[in-house]
Amino acid sequence: MDFKATDIASFLNGEIVGDGDAKVSNVSKIEDGKPGTLAFLANPKYENYIYETKASVVLVNKSFTPKEEISATLIKVDDAYQAFASLLDLYVQAKASMKQGIEQPCYIAESATRGDDGYVGAFAYIGNNAKIGKNVKIYPQVHVGDNVKIGDDCILYPGAKIYDDCVIGNRCIIHSGAVIGADGFGFAPQADGTYKKVHQIGNAVLEDDVEIGANTTIDCGTMESTIIRKGVKLDNLIQIAHNVEVGDNTVMAAQTGISGSAKIGKNCMFGGQVGLGGHITVGDNVTLGAQSGVVSNLKSNQTLLGSPAIEIKTAMRAYVLLKDLPEIRRDVLQLKKTINTDKKN
Amino acid sequence: MDFKATDIASFLNGEIVGDGDAKVSNVSKIEDGKPGTLAFLANPKYENYIYETKASVVLVNKSFTPKEEISATLIKVDDAYQAFASLLDLYVQAKASMKQGIEQPCYIAESATRGDDGYVGAFAYIGNNAKIGKNVKIYPQVHVGDNVKIGDDCILYPGAKIYDDCVIGNRCIIHSGAVIGADGFGFAPQADGTYKKVHQIGNAVLEDDVEIGANTTIDCGTMESTIIRKGVKLDNLIQIAHNVEVGDNTVMAAQTGISGSAKIGKNCMFGGQVGLGGHITVGDNVTLGAQSGVVSNLKSNQTLLGSPAIEIKTAMRAYVLLKDLPEIRRDVLQLKKTINTDKKN
Amino acid sequence: MDFKATDIASFLNGEIVGDGDAKVSNVSKIEDGKPGTLAFLANPKYENYIYETKASVVLVNKSFTPKEEISATLIKVDDAYQAFASLLDLYVQAKASMKQGIEQPCYIAESATRGDDGYVGAFAYIGNNAKIGKNVKIYPQVHVGDNVKIGDDCILYPGAKIYDDCVIGNRCIIHSGAVIGADGFGFAPQADGTYKKVHQIGNAVLEDDVEIGANTTIDCGTMESTIIRKGVKLDNLIQIAHNVEVGDNTVMAAQTGISGSAKIGKNCMFGGQVGLGGHITVGDNVTLGAQSGVVSNLKSNQTLLGSPAIEIKTAMRAYVLLKDLPEIRRDVLQLKKTINTDKKN
Repeated sequence: MDFKATDIASFLNGEIVGDGDAKVSNVSKIEDGKPGTLAFLANPKYENYIYETKASVVLVNKSFTPKEEISATLIKVDDAYQAFASLLDLYVQAKASMKQGIEQPCYIAESATRGDDGYVGAFAYIGNNAKIGKNVKIYPQVHVGDNVKIGDDCILYPGAKIYDDCVIGNRCIIHSGAVIGADGFGFAPQADGTYKKVHQIGNAVLEDDVEIGANTTIDCGTMESTIIRKGVKLDNLIQIAHNVEVGDNTVMAAQTGISGSAKIGKNCMFGGQVGLGGHITVGDNVTLGAQSGVVSNLKSNQTLLGSPAIEIKTAMRAYVLLKDLPEIRRDVLQLKKTINTDKKN
Repeated sequence: MDFKATDIASFLNGEIVGDGDAKVSNVSKIEDGKPGTLAFLANPKYENYIYETKASVVLVNKSFTPKEEISATLIKVDDAYQAFASLLDLYVQAKASMKQGIEQPCYIAESATRGDDGYVGAFAYIGNNAKIGKNVKIYPQVHVGDNVKIGDDCILYPGAKIYDDCVIGNRCIIHSGAVIGADGFGFAPQADGTYKKVHQIGNAVLEDDVEIGANTTIDCGTMESTIIRKGVKLDNLIQIAHNVEVGDNTVMAAQTGISGSAKIGKNCMFGGQVGLGGHITVGDNVTLGAQSGVVSNLKSNQTLLGSPAIEIKTAMRAYVLLKDLPEIRRDVLQLKKTINTDKKN
Repeated sequence: MDFKATDIASFLNGEIVGDGDAKVSNVSKIEDGKPGTLAFLANPKYENYIYETKASVVLVNKSFTPKEEISATLIKVDDAYQAFASLLDLYVQAKASMKQGIEQPCYIAESATRGDDGYVGAFAYIGNNAKIGKNVKIYPQVHVGDNVKIGDDCILYPGAKIYDDCVIGNRCIIHSGAVIGADGFGFAPQADGTYKKVHQIGNAVLEDDVEIGANTTIDCGTMESTIIRKGVKLDNLIQIAHNVEVGDNTVMAAQTGISGSAKIGKNCMFGGQVGLGGHITVGDNVTLGAQSGVVSNLKSNQTLLGSPAIEIKTAMRAYVLLKDLPEIRRDVLQLKKTINTDKKN
């Protein structure tokens, strides 16, 4: 898709400086702009790039006055960053709206229902009694199990897998390879050393506006639901075990693992590769640094780091001293020797 | 499916107290029982919940005598927990038995063979010379490679991938997105800094009663087999590298990684996010705490924690002192200064 | 496939000692050789195995003179290891060449193009305007998004998922469940505690000779490309976040995670479960031990370990002393007491 500078300016209520016929088909960052792309300049720190950029069109604030010659066409708007963001919204919506209808072959159970304006890709599978809302994009090779409920305006990317009985809210995005509702890891040890499976008959519930990263796994509850509250964003390769609850707007970076029955509050931020033990309760607004390990309950409004996790400033002061442990021990041994020698004298 | 209290009581040889016509369609925990569900009371600590529960039917031990009025219908049995477990078994079996036959379109190579009573979901793929036992459920979008052997009574959930030549025992369960038998990570460094692939032509072997979690990966051996012994249970997102052997009934929690050629004994328990180095031998009954890192061989019957992993009590005492490192160093420096001062006096 | 010893000897320009009619259908290691397999002896340390091996045929160096009787047929060649490797190459090529043509049903968009000699498995999906080179094997259930470009001689194993607009070079191998080009994890915090998605409209670019392990995820760039340079080898379950660049011939072991916008040099080696923070620059030839955590830029030609990562020898000396922390603190407290007592005297 090619867009002309004058058309973009007109959509944004902006003012053209330069060649109004310049065309763009993509966007770029101003520091590595390529011909045929549109960039923006909002932060004055990046101003020097605008005199060198090869981007064909650049959005700038009305207040911007160039100090040198600029080869790109400028579009002056009230807020260059907001204008750029609204163009991106438009672009993404236009692209998404191209996925419509049903590709064959796909498998939609007779008892399943679907709202209007959706997409079902080839080789997607929709099970018995599944209830799917309006404008839901189900990409190729997605699996939607029996009795699954999905709200409106969701996107399930290629190969996402939803087990039976799970519930997904409105405006959720589930990336490729994510697995929602697989059996929790529950086994009863037997006298002979073997394990008997504890049936996992609960489900997983994702509330509205949840985004789940690629290859992330969210297990079903044992009898109840594993619950991901509204606005939660999970990165890739995260593990959420059975019976966990994750509070509103909590975000977790990649490869974090949450053990069974943990309850996590609202607006928490967990770095990558964090581990949380089973049955732990975490308050609201808790921030955990990457690779932290948590083995006890955490109150609200804290920032922690380390394994076991401690207050972040303490952790940073302490971990950096690990390298000095050999010297510290040598000193202590020497001191003991000195003191003993002194005493003997 | 709706079940009547009198029918359940009759199946369990139990005695009804209250409304025998009460119906249930699901189960719940007594502490959050909902109308239309069946709960159980076995542990006396939960007794107070039975007077408030909204569950319609509750299984109780014969010895149980209520102290207050109870609105739920009671079914008195010899062992409430066992009775509940047997009902769950029945429910799960009934549900599983509904998946039968072959959904179209699926791809079954002409040279593949399948036992009776199985299920092949739409978009599943079964390769040349694959041999599949009786009562095997192959859900949609599963891939079974050429020459794969699968025993009886297995379940392969949607999108599980089995590479060529792998062998899977009886009563195994493989969850969505698990990858069995992908190439081990083997590359020979060349003089120019590039790597030449070392062909990985072995396979992965899962013995009987193995369960593999969602998105877990088990690589094939270089020339031999990667072996997962009987009764092993692996959680989600675990990595098992080439040529590894995991002994009978060993269980591992999510996101644990086992490096190439490690040999792990029987009845071990590994917490989440554990890492095991290459070519390491671990004995039987070894327990590793979450996030442990193991870089040397481990004898049987130990419980370890930390990275590098050390005896767990020592580890717990040591790691909790990390936060005191700055103070310890300050003290040591002060002591050195004091001693020196003393000496100079 | 059965091969006769004389045919193998003739292919390798080798000399038969023993039964030229011996047949093999597979390979094995000499220390656990089975009848009907071919093994090799190159390292003199393994010589004792050749007198006991059950392998039917063994490749040996011309210089090898047996000290005892050997039941296997020997093939004497200039370099037993190289000869074995070239046989493996032949075997793997022969096997790969059996996957040819298009299995039905698959989905290939009309606007997609494909070079000669490839394979498209059943239930594979190839999107609009995808451009696929010669001799590319697209296994069943693979997803190739719109506008994706794939070079020559690539293999995409069952269920690999490539998002729209990604670019893959020549001779790349992508294992099952790998997800290339999913949305980077970018969200703008709003005043009310919710997050607004930052559109991720870049792509992921894999240069030539890249291998991506099972269930590994490589996110697309925000506006630019996430770039995996030529010769990079990534193991299973690795996370590469948006806008990352990984330099030529860098290799990473399983479950490592690279945060957004990190730039990694050439010929680095990262162990398993390593974590790299966002916006970090790593030089060339940097080696990181397993479970390391990196939070600051790293110069070239270093070997580090630990979290935070420090020079490896320092780290090994320091981490092994963690177990002594309780004793060190006890000593320090005792010393303080002694000194104080001394002073009071």
